[in-house]
Amino acid sequence: MKAQVYITPKAGILDPEGSTVGQALKNLGIGGVSDVRMGKYIEMTLPGVPRKQAEKITTEACDRLLVNPNIETYRFDILEDS
Amino acid sequence: MKAQVYITPKAGILDPEGSTVGQALKNLGIGGVSDVRMGKYIEMTLPGVPRKQAEKITTEACDRLLVNPNIETYRFDILEDS
Repeated sequence: MKAQVYITPKAGILDPEGSTVGQALKNLGIGGVSDVRMGKYIEMTLPGVPRKQAEKITTEACDRLLVNPNIETYRFDILEDS
Repeated sequence: MKAQVYITPKAGILDPEGSTVGQALKNLGIGGVSDVRMGKYIEMTLPGVPRKQAEKITTEACDRLLVNPNIETYRFDILEDS
């Protein structure tokens, strides 16, 4: 299985990197973007692991290592190996 | 519209942050993960922008600012505002 994890700053949490990117887009003349939020995207390969177990491992990886629950939120997809 | 952009290191490009996370998972006793790749996840809000235009803006943002084409690859989804 492959796990795709998306980690984003919680709503209401200041995201200075996102604000900087938003301003840089304006400076480049790229309009139409009102808000930018910067997050992390993590791909994990779990060879030969059944789906239920992959969900459990990914949740544990997020809760114990990858995500700061004070300021970040996450979601993930579990996909068949391609 | 909302754009969800996923940026990952190209295949074959060394990803030291991913390797570190993979090792940390092992150290925590979280098994089953053979490979970790760290990327970026960016959400952009494009209010009142039609889909075609949102795709054009997002592509331009990636090509001119967000992505280093030497070592990174990207894909994105354009979603209706929720």
